Amino acid sequence: MKYHFYNANILSEGKILHGDVVVEDEKIIYVGKDIAVKADREIDVKGNVLMAGFVNAHVHTPMTLLRGVADDMELYSWLYDNIFPAEQKLTPEDVYWGEMLGIAEQVRAGITAFDENYFHFDAIIDAVKKSGIRCRLGLPGNFNSKSAKEMNEFLDLYISKLDNKLIKPAIYAHSIYTLTEEELSILVDYSAKHKLPVCMHLAETLKEVGDCTVKNECTPPEYLEKLGFLDRPSTLYHCVHLDKDDIKILADYNANVVTCPSSNLKLGSGIAPIYSMKEHGLNICIGTDGTASNNSLDMFKEMFLVATLNKATLYDASIISANEVLDMATKNGALALGFEGCGDIIEGNYADLILIDLNKPHHQPLNNIISNLVYSAKSSDVYFTMVNGKILYEDGKFNIGEDIEKIYENCQKITKRIL
Amino acid sequence: MKYHFYNANILSEGKILHGDVVVEDEKIIYVGKDIAVKADREIDVKGNVLMAGFVNAHVHTPMTLLRGVADDMELYSWLYDNIFPAEQKLTPEDVYWGEMLGIAEQVRAGITAFDENYFHFDAIIDAVKKSGIRCRLGLPGNFNSKSAKEMNEFLDLYISKLDNKLIKPAIYAHSIYTLTEEELSILVDYSAKHKLPVCMHLAETLKEVGDCTVKNECTPPEYLEKLGFLDRPSTLYHCVHLDKDDIKILADYNANVVTCPSSNLKLGSGIAPIYSMKEHGLNICIGTDGTASNNSLDMFKEMFLVATLNKATLYDASIISANEVLDMATKNGALALGFEGCGDIIEGNYADLILIDLNKPHHQPLNNIISNLVYSAKSSDVYFTMVNGKILYEDGKFNIGEDIEKIYENCQKITKRIL
Repeated sequence: MKYHFYNANILSEGKILHGDVVVEDEKIIYVGKDIAVKADREIDVKGNVLMAGFVNAHVHTPMTLLRGVADDMELYSWLYDNIFPAEQKLTPEDVYWGEMLGIAEQVRAGITAFDENYFHFDAIIDAVKKSGIRCRLGLPGNFNSKSAKEMNEFLDLYISKLDNKLIKPAIYAHSIYTLTEEELSILVDYSAKHKLPVCMHLAETLKEVGDCTVKNECTPPEYLEKLGFLDRPSTLYHCVHLDKDDIKILADYNANVVTCPSSNLKLGSGIAPIYSMKEHGLNICIGTDGTASNNSLDMFKEMFLVATLNKATLYDASIISANEVLDMATKNGALALGFEGCGDIIEGNYADLILIDLNKPHHQPLNNIISNLVYSAKSSDVYFTMVNGKILYEDGKFNIGEDIEKIYENCQKITKRIL
Repeated sequence: MKYHFYNANILSEGKILHGDVVVEDEKIIYVGKDIAVKADREIDVKGNVLMAGFVNAHVHTPMTLLRGVADDMELYSWLYDNIFPAEQKLTPEDVYWGEMLGIAEQVRAGITAFDENYFHFDAIIDAVKKSGIRCRLGLPGNFNSKSAKEMNEFLDLYISKLDNKLIKPAIYAHSIYTLTEEELSILVDYSAKHKLPVCMHLAETLKEVGDCTVKNECTPPEYLEKLGFLDRPSTLYHCVHLDKDDIKILADYNANVVTCPSSNLKLGSGIAPIYSMKEHGLNICIGTDGTASNNSLDMFKEMFLVATLNKATLYDASIISANEVLDMATKNGALALGFEGCGDIIEGNYADLILIDLNKPHHQPLNNIISNLVYSAKSSDVYFTMVNGKILYEDGKFNIGEDIEKIYENCQKITKRIL
């Protein structure tokens, strides 16, 4: 299948270029000035934006089922008293529908790839494969009383089920407060043996940092360093409470950090030191976290926050630019998640792209498109989402393998049962 | 004209009630269970939300023209080196079209009333009256070398042009750093003589507070108290940098405060102490500020920030609830601006109301509508906006007295000329 997009404002390598993009099968084969080309479908972009889809670098997608449950309480009560008990009631089928709902929400909002951390892996794999979205799946999260041998077999089994193109594996250790040192070591060993990246929630709250300091006599990054966790390519979620030395450690190991500002604000966790991370050269990505702590999967909301929160805490509006934030929301995430050939509109890349409608009051007059994308745009401006050359959303219609009304209906039934 | 809204989830007095609303001419005449009534138009709300329109308690609407101009710099450079010079080129006709664009953006986003502070008053009055939106207009802003006598005549003239129902006057002093003590006193005297409220930007930046402390040997609220400004019913915009004593002064005088979190973040001004203001009993309202410092007129974005920013700075997720924030965005604003009978869906109130579509992935499953309105909803979910019984926006169509494409075209021409 060949698509010819013309009359587009293309966001490519941090600049806006007016012209055409041609997609053939899975790939972008042309980016440039107007071109005459024979295509199966001609798409007049009408001066709107064509850009790479967003990479949501941290999400627990099936938590859509718990949207609006347990608001306005801090992370530990939220997690242990509300979220974990509700999650224990979820069946694999429930998770399948929650995943589908979250995929619908994400493609509607221009997200073309995400880093998934949840459970009931067969259900997640089914939904992701059926939908056609790009995903890195973190395994296993927690041990649930498995022995080292059982865990190795478990990981072997699930990793064999992934196709390694649209859906890739990572070794996911939930956090230093839910896993023992022995369990963490088993996962590090597995990741080293199988050349897989590792990922984890890190330094999300002051309590986590305080508890770690008491128990391990070091900060969370120092603890990970000691365990050899940082010797692996790593993606660390949240990283709200890092001091200068912590940031230096993460930079020394080329760790990827994922900031989730909405979730950190809503749970009262704090504001991550993005500017300092940036100045230390860390690869900063952006995630939404799950919808029980956000409560939506919207990278535009996150981009605005990443662009502005550190301005307010450091009283300096010049420390971070719209362009830097767009990179964090696209190519930085693709780099962290191991999706080579994603995250930008350049020839040879995979066709993970979105169209953004500018013909709306909040984009007018069109003085500065890049500024608008970060400071004015809304996820509802996305009207076309393509992943790997396949259209997953266009003008209100979803093409993700399940009917949208059926997804709503099933999710409503599930929450009526479990809440 | 009589409207019968049925099958609605009505947000009324902080609770969700399933039923019907009847509007006759300018007023809401029924709120309750299903009712059989003869109406000119029956509207099936399909289980979506019917709620009061938002009151945007601080905006410079025609700054839509300067959207995306001068991002990523602090308030004083932004204002003196970029915004003021561009504004000097604006003609009354330019301001008319900028106002119209901002009105379009606001009604599209469910805003039914706003507090306007700008210049070229005839143009603003024309646009507001033509559109049918509700507005409080602040006069004069700055003196521009007028004598006391000239200023009194100027104010008399413009106040006579307002109808006092859809468009009400307030005495607007821009700030303590742009007006002299004598000028401030002239405005306070005028407001007292004519029984008008006063409004002003206050304690927006650390610089403003520092300069005031050096020059006047007191904080901005202490300075206003000394001048008699706080003896008048007052609305104070921003209030980012207030200590406990400042907040007590404002509470003693029943001042209304307007928080504008997006603008304060983006300009690097800081984060307002909303929790402390709330605990001291201040009437807290929410504003977007202008689109050169935000860059959109979206009360949903502001609500999320008001609900979450203090949670993060005080590390406590329980200090502010979704319901409190909905009040700030509606009835508190109506109270501050003097729009009695607005800001809630109750019988006898004016028909300033909006419909919000819940049949979208980011609202599903529908576990908690009030939570969704603050933590998940987007301004694009608004599909119907009525002010004073007149529909100003419905399903993509604007009814504000000017064609939307003509508004876009004229605004684009203006910015091409002035930038």
